Amino acid sequence: MTHTERPLDVVILAAGQGTRMNSALPKVLHPVAGRPMVAWAVKAARELGAHDIVVVTGHGAEQVEAALSGSGVRFARQEQRLGTGHAFLVGAEALGETGGADLLVLYGDTPLLRTETLRELIADHRAHGNAFTILTGELPDATGYGRVLRGAAGDVERIVEEKAATPAEKAVREFNSGVYVMDGQAPELARRITNHNRAGEYYLTDLLTLYRAEGARVGAFKLSDPDEVVGANDRLGLAQAEAILRRRINAAHMRAGVTLQAPDTVQIEDTVILGRDVTVEPGVILRGQTQIAGGVTVGAYSVVTDSVLEAGVVVKPHSVLEGAWVGAGSDVGPFARLRPGTVLGEGVHIGNFVETKNARLDAGVKAGHLAYLGDVTMGAETNVGAGTIIANFDGVNKHQSRVGAGVFIGSNSTLIAPRVVGDAAFIAAGSALHEDVPEGALAVARGKQRTLEGWSRRYWGGMREKVREKLPWLAGWLERQG
Amino acid sequence: MTHTERPLDVVILAAGQGTRMNSALPKVLHPVAGRPMVAWAVKAARELGAHDIVVVTGHGAEQVEAALSGSGVRFARQEQRLGTGHAFLVGAEALGETGGADLLVLYGDTPLLRTETLRELIADHRAHGNAFTILTGELPDATGYGRVLRGAAGDVERIVEEKAATPAEKAVREFNSGVYVMDGQAPELARRITNHNRAGEYYLTDLLTLYRAEGARVGAFKLSDPDEVVGANDRLGLAQAEAILRRRINAAHMRAGVTLQAPDTVQIEDTVILGRDVTVEPGVILRGQTQIAGGVTVGAYSVVTDSVLEAGVVVKPHSVLEGAWVGAGSDVGPFARLRPGTVLGEGVHIGNFVETKNARLDAGVKAGHLAYLGDVTMGAETNVGAGTIIANFDGVNKHQSRVGAGVFIGSNSTLIAPRVVGDAAFIAAGSALHEDVPEGALAVARGKQRTLEGWSRRYWGGMREKVREKLPWLAGWLERQG
Amino acid sequence: MTHTERPLDVVILAAGQGTRMNSALPKVLHPVAGRPMVAWAVKAARELGAHDIVVVTGHGAEQVEAALSGSGVRFARQEQRLGTGHAFLVGAEALGETGGADLLVLYGDTPLLRTETLRELIADHRAHGNAFTILTGELPDATGYGRVLRGAAGDVERIVEEKAATPAEKAVREFNSGVYVMDGQAPELARRITNHNRAGEYYLTDLLTLYRAEGARVGAFKLSDPDEVVGANDRLGLAQAEAILRRRINAAHMRAGVTLQAPDTVQIEDTVILGRDVTVEPGVILRGQTQIAGGVTVGAYSVVTDSVLEAGVVVKPHSVLEGAWVGAGSDVGPFARLRPGTVLGEGVHIGNFVETKNARLDAGVKAGHLAYLGDVTMGAETNVGAGTIIANFDGVNKHQSRVGAGVFIGSNSTLIAPRVVGDAAFIAAGSALHEDVPEGALAVARGKQRTLEGWSRRYWGGMREKVREKLPWLAGWLERQG
Repeated sequence: MTHTERPLDVVILAAGQGTRMNSALPKVLHPVAGRPMVAWAVKAARELGAHDIVVVTGHGAEQVEAALSGSGVRFARQEQRLGTGHAFLVGAEALGETGGADLLVLYGDTPLLRTETLRELIADHRAHGNAFTILTGELPDATGYGRVLRGAAGDVERIVEEKAATPAEKAVREFNSGVYVMDGQAPELARRITNHNRAGEYYLTDLLTLYRAEGARVGAFKLSDPDEVVGANDRLGLAQAEAILRRRINAAHMRAGVTLQAPDTVQIEDTVILGRDVTVEPGVILRGQTQIAGGVTVGAYSVVTDSVLEAGVVVKPHSVLEGAWVGAGSDVGPFARLRPGTVLGEGVHIGNFVETKNARLDAGVKAGHLAYLGDVTMGAETNVGAGTIIANFDGVNKHQSRVGAGVFIGSNSTLIAPRVVGDAAFIAAGSALHEDVPEGALAVARGKQRTLEGWSRRYWGGMREKVREKLPWLAGWLERQG
Repeated sequence: MTHTERPLDVVILAAGQGTRMNSALPKVLHPVAGRPMVAWAVKAARELGAHDIVVVTGHGAEQVEAALSGSGVRFARQEQRLGTGHAFLVGAEALGETGGADLLVLYGDTPLLRTETLRELIADHRAHGNAFTILTGELPDATGYGRVLRGAAGDVERIVEEKAATPAEKAVREFNSGVYVMDGQAPELARRITNHNRAGEYYLTDLLTLYRAEGARVGAFKLSDPDEVVGANDRLGLAQAEAILRRRINAAHMRAGVTLQAPDTVQIEDTVILGRDVTVEPGVILRGQTQIAGGVTVGAYSVVTDSVLEAGVVVKPHSVLEGAWVGAGSDVGPFARLRPGTVLGEGVHIGNFVETKNARLDAGVKAGHLAYLGDVTMGAETNVGAGTIIANFDGVNKHQSRVGAGVFIGSNSTLIAPRVVGDAAFIAAGSALHEDVPEGALAVARGKQRTLEGWSRRYWGGMREKVREKLPWLAGWLERQG
Repeated sequence: MTHTERPLDVVILAAGQGTRMNSALPKVLHPVAGRPMVAWAVKAARELGAHDIVVVTGHGAEQVEAALSGSGVRFARQEQRLGTGHAFLVGAEALGETGGADLLVLYGDTPLLRTETLRELIADHRAHGNAFTILTGELPDATGYGRVLRGAAGDVERIVEEKAATPAEKAVREFNSGVYVMDGQAPELARRITNHNRAGEYYLTDLLTLYRAEGARVGAFKLSDPDEVVGANDRLGLAQAEAILRRRINAAHMRAGVTLQAPDTVQIEDTVILGRDVTVEPGVILRGQTQIAGGVTVGAYSVVTDSVLEAGVVVKPHSVLEGAWVGAGSDVGPFARLRPGTVLGEGVHIGNFVETKNARLDAGVKAGHLAYLGDVTMGAETNVGAGTIIANFDGVNKHQSRVGAGVFIGSNSTLIAPRVVGDAAFIAAGSALHEDVPEGALAVARGKQRTLEGWSRRYWGGMREKVREKLPWLAGWLERQG
């Protein structure tokens, strides 16, 4: 087995409480850029092709395990928090038989660490034939971190914790990120870590000494961007991590040919796929499994979640889409709301103050204003008048309606579901339909118009004082009527 | 009387014009983070427990006094702008009998000055037994400020104005903020300030010399953050002050356990109260006496003013709330508008394009789509169909309606107020109610449905050319009808 | 002819492909702050009073020429990209007889270059009696640029390209922006540029040597802000240019007396005119030929395009206006949409979820909620009830309606266009009007209300199980009915 074929196991330490978050939610579940922090570590582990992933849980273990259920990881509970060395051992012992796999240690609170960096770390570890490799970084002032102490030949000798460091050691700028790659003897060695220190904790850093005592080759790989291992320890740190991740995601899209006019105001989750020459206006939020074809424009302040926008689509400002499929050349908004189950064909027009839900609207359907289209299918070219409501709810159940192609639904109409309207039917404005409409028929369900001449004079005359006070034109008119 | 019991009077100088604001509004009334600048000084004075607060007004005095009326301050008009020394004297003479109170001088255009800093200044003044203490700051380049000149022993000897400073004096980095604490003899001494200088102005800084001439103890207290005394002199300065204040407010919330995903896009006024684990999405604006319980999420771009959100509430994006009370577990939006007098019980659902005003909706009421609920009460579990309108206005008056519990209001219904609908009544879709509905009754107020077969063929046939041009499917259908 | 009277011709080089844009759109057509990049150069040329403007096109020539058609420029196609010297020559030869005009060379991808800077450059060129003047800048590290090499006397001797520079030359911090002013012999000299260099390209910089060989006076004018000539070469560069331009525009408005609470979130195109004491809330977007009178407030997240807002107007948050005229003292929004052809008189009220299009609403009209007003005129003081729809579309044509003054349109009414409603008419709520209404008359077109006592008990009784499950209050009521 060559080293490049060697499998990789990952232990993710995620048991800490994170008191500074000041939260009922365990620290590692706080989301950054749409994903709980710990899920970023899991994602990286998966992208590395990890064979086995064990997440060590402790504080809020049930919540953490629930959040990651279905992600293909296994869990090991650290019942008592006795230190990182102990947490690692709990995780390592939960790993299955790994037959010489390398072992990577990650953390549940460092969402900025790139998979690419980890790939380089592992490659370096293997290329140098190391038994143990530390991911390090360099800062002008590394206060707060353990420092990496190297020997005359440049090899890593020891890690000294901030608390135990001498002034000379504190001046060292290379710090320990806490991320390590190890060979298969790590679990065995980890059992020898003791808590014979001032804090009475088991420190994972002791592993370095244990490896060296074995005469094993120990190395360090230095991060080019030390920010990658900054942990988010409070909400300010969360917001900073979020901003960095956002910028990273946005920059990648811009390089790939997406226009972001005001990138600092735009939120795009890393699961979103954008084609070339997409324009994302200011304040847009794109979430989840959203896919947007080349050339599409998403208008300012729109929020698009788990939706597909085909070529030529224009989403106007202030639209909210979730679980919708928008066919080529359609336009949506402003102030449109497409809810799950919305499927729009080609060239559909959805205008302002229109809501769709579980609605399949075929090519060329137009619903331009103030409508609710729920649990309904509509054939091609059907025109939905302003104020149209599909009354899909009877108080306890939802009912499904079918409207044909080429139907004209007059304004302010109500279709009481379940309703079937045939092709090319015509529904008179203001109708409330409680019967089906055959193909090609006119349905009218409204009162006949009656006119009462001279009525206004009596009506307003009855409240003449108020009219004078509030409606000067009408007061004058009333005056003229004598 | 020990010094910690000594009362405090405050004089706020707010008479300047602020030409660079380029505004019809007096400079000190320009709002920063939701509050006129001068009101930040008043707020600080109140937080310090000031005994008497006098605001010296001049430019736009009527406007300034009107804006602060009801804030418990008194006003002294500086009729002519003769300099800060004169302005101070006008204010000091308006103070009542203060019996040995300390006197603090503040300004109407320094909204960034923290109460905590002033508390430290006053404590320092008292601890050192000073008669006069200057709040100073230090900048790498203090150009534009008066410099603080100290003697060999480090005691403050003199303040030299920028204009009068020698090159050596200009190199001094400690500057005078213009904020002072003084003992009770200050008004008396201020009368001795003269305008015998090039500008012919009365300078308040002369007080330092006068105090020293009395042999009184003069001190300085240095700000740790010199930005706190930066005055906002134009709109750019206003915007910078606003940004700093916003960041300060946001950081405090984050430390207390509130998640702000994109804090730079969020505006929270300092009067707003947020519980732990509240999530504030991008672009949210929270104003006035808003109180939000722990765990609530406020969706992107929502604007919430003077409203209470109880536990478990979810406000979806693009909602506008003002003067609303939202009961536990309710959800609101997107595109909802709750206006003053809205009181929602537990688990109420308000969906998109719904407006409420002076509306008490009991637990479990659902109004999911396109409705106007004004001047109405609704009992528990009532279902409001899409397109429902409470027609509360007769042209001059608003009328109040009452809808019972468990009522089903069909879609596109109109309740012509004042209307009373009994419990468990059922209103057929499309009804316009002009009579009350008894408990448990069905009300129908719409036309009967009639169907005219074959009508569409004649209708579209009459405009066959246009149909061919614009509606290809319908043209084909028409063709097939022969 | 004195030099200040000398005409100016401009050649804009806009033939490049801009591969790093990764776009189907030619690089110079990518918009920055609402204007294709090349249009910024054209705008500058116009502001300089250029006599003749030639844009040299190449990559995507048809698109670039189409985009600039009607802007008064002429085009010269560079069929093969042989270098800047060649591009210039193509442009220069397209210039008409210019009779000793100066010639300015600009670029299609430097939108940050200020007209004011160019004015200074030209003035400097003329004041020094130069034949050829280079616009230069200075950077701590000018890597990537051609360096400007000066002689002992400080005069410009040569420009050396990055690739050809010695280490000593690379240390030079003054760089060539590529912008030049030249006298009338430039086209003639440009013909002598050769491509005898490693790249086989014709370099425009060779012109400097050719001028010097003629013994002509050559000068350089140094930019105070080198950022002005940074080209936008990819989408990140575009976003940076956009941010700089936005800040410039916003700062100018702030200096002129406009309040921007959060300028970093506000987008204002440079064509927009704002009066003094306008307040622009966070997230607002102002585009095109928009004019806003002094004192107006534009609410958060509103998007206003090509609209006029008169004095005293208040636009509430989340409003979208396009091509609308809003009369003095009117208020609009939140969630209002004014579309082209909207003309509002004084004191008109447009509330939430209201859309207007081609609608002239006279003074005092009120449309507060959920309405569509399309292709209609309304006289003064007319009240539009919630849910009112002007049904202006018959399936293929739009029809125009006229509503008089002092009309009361009851809620949920539909006016089937073309409809004429006389002054002071009263339309009962829930009416669908298919006949005109005379002055002062009442029109009712709805069904009569019928009440069926005891109906709910049977209705809900029929689905008692579901009611029990979902509607506990109603289940209890049903129980009590026995």
